[in-house]
Amino acid sequence: MAVYTDISEEELVAFLGEYSVGNLLSYKGIAEGTENSNYLLHTTQGAYILTLYERRVEKADLPFFLGLMQHLSRKGISCPLPVQRKDGELIGHLAGRPAALITFLEGNWMRSPTAAHCRQVGKALAEMHLAAADFTLTRPNALAPEGWLKLWSACRDRADQVMVGLAEETSRDLDEIVGQWPTDLPSGVIHADLFPDNVFFLNGKLSGLIDFYFACNDLLAYDIATCLNAWCFEKDISFNLTKGAALLAGYQSVRPLGPAELEALPLLARGSAVRFMLTRLYDWLTIPDGPLVKKRDPLEYLRRMRFHRQIRSANEYGVGIG
Amino acid sequence: MAVYTDISEEELVAFLGEYSVGNLLSYKGIAEGTENSNYLLHTTQGAYILTLYERRVEKADLPFFLGLMQHLSRKGISCPLPVQRKDGELIGHLAGRPAALITFLEGNWMRSPTAAHCRQVGKALAEMHLAAADFTLTRPNALAPEGWLKLWSACRDRADQVMVGLAEETSRDLDEIVGQWPTDLPSGVIHADLFPDNVFFLNGKLSGLIDFYFACNDLLAYDIATCLNAWCFEKDISFNLTKGAALLAGYQSVRPLGPAELEALPLLARGSAVRFMLTRLYDWLTIPDGPLVKKRDPLEYLRRMRFHRQIRSANEYGVGIG
Repeated sequence: MAVYTDISEEELVAFLGEYSVGNLLSYKGIAEGTENSNYLLHTTQGAYILTLYERRVEKADLPFFLGLMQHLSRKGISCPLPVQRKDGELIGHLAGRPAALITFLEGNWMRSPTAAHCRQVGKALAEMHLAAADFTLTRPNALAPEGWLKLWSACRDRADQVMVGLAEETSRDLDEIVGQWPTDLPSGVIHADLFPDNVFFLNGKLSGLIDFYFACNDLLAYDIATCLNAWCFEKDISFNLTKGAALLAGYQSVRPLGPAELEALPLLARGSAVRFMLTRLYDWLTIPDGPLVKKRDPLEYLRRMRFHRQIRSANEYGVGIG
Repeated sequence: MAVYTDISEEELVAFLGEYSVGNLLSYKGIAEGTENSNYLLHTTQGAYILTLYERRVEKADLPFFLGLMQHLSRKGISCPLPVQRKDGELIGHLAGRPAALITFLEGNWMRSPTAAHCRQVGKALAEMHLAAADFTLTRPNALAPEGWLKLWSACRDRADQVMVGLAEETSRDLDEIVGQWPTDLPSGVIHADLFPDNVFFLNGKLSGLIDFYFACNDLLAYDIATCLNAWCFEKDISFNLTKGAALLAGYQSVRPLGPAELEALPLLARGSAVRFMLTRLYDWLTIPDGPLVKKRDPLEYLRRMRFHRQIRSANEYGVGIG
């Protein structure tokens, strides 16, 4: 759930006065994104998303996120385009928060993606990686091994409240994963959170990628590993090889993976699973319960960690099949 | 906050197949309404609101609510128009719930309404009352004196948890108000919840009324009393006479109030204040706390009850001034 900040028409109209987007017709708080307040605006010129950045987003990171969207959009990647203000800036202020206006992307996210969707996601991810290659700003990944260890030290003592044995199992896994973590693979700008709710489709065709607020510089193949976790497991946490094969084939149709990337894939997938397990665990232990709070189960990612632990080679994800 | 039910594109496309509204482009859960799940849809033909009726809405009441919107819209009142299905029905089913598709009304609600807004609201309320006069369905007001007493018996024993003395003060007030409650005033269909968030404006002009899910048959002047409570008090619960005068003048420019209605106005305003105090008190005592739950303070309405208790005549609300 989102929408933390309410805004009045007066302040919104004043804010929009800095842009050339026509006159305001309506604005509705939408229940998308978890970190920011988002409004869907109608103006006489079309539809826009207004995002107010709440405190979990570092203000210093906004030029990276918005600049990346602008860069990708100019390179032909379908993603929201931040609208420039009359003074050329991408970031304004509204209700005491940094705020940006971005174009509205039609399309819907898939609650139950198929292999055909996975293939398109793989292809779009590779296209994004190539298009971002000459983006000049950089941002380190705050949720890379060092970040995992910080989260883990904040959660470890209470991990067994969630499941007896979780502390020991995670510690052992983290030691193995972090100890072997590769550093010499091709790197660049990654999306880092390309879950189904961040990919829109229209009539079965991918219509765009959204939510670049975890984007950063890291290993490109790590982004694929996250997509395997996000797109290729069924609700019962069984791995769907057909979807894995389609996702990997879609990616490789644009950017073939090198032998070292393929070899590292099981470890990268374990790392990605532990990353989402840890952020979910942290939220599970720190966010108070409430009737409208739907916390996500960290154990769904423990089960992915266990799955990837048994994988011996990228072939078992479907490389070369799809 | 709203949006309780998530829906998939597949089921939404199947649902829309029963209507002639073009092809789905996007749908976003919106944070409006507290009783139902609402989505803002874009199709190739325009924008629509999709409402899923959650359990707090009686299914048997839907023909009244939707039929009223259709009736008012045909009579020229600007309000959302329920879209007919190909089979002529107004109510469909989606995700196991009754659901309706209604036209999207552009406009914004006023967080800080002025007297000019109040005048237009008064006028629109009177126009609605006249336009509904020949609507044939009826619905009793579940939140009339009998309903208040039911709520009160559920809350009374715990009322002093909210404020010491609340139980005694409310009991005394309820006795007085219910004992003198008028029955012989002009009655008809009332909106019963015409708060600022249910009235849209565009460029300073009223563009429509929404949310008819409390509409019912009751005293017409009681609807005005609710608007006085909803529109004419400042945030510090002081009464703004200029706004009261404007609201009443706007109403009377379309439908002049009779002497008996004017005389009853202070009592009706007390009754309306006690009605909102009681529903807020009930929610306050029964809804669990949580980080995303923003419960509304019943004492804001206790203060309105106290204000209206001292009023001797409708002139003190501004009748004849505006």
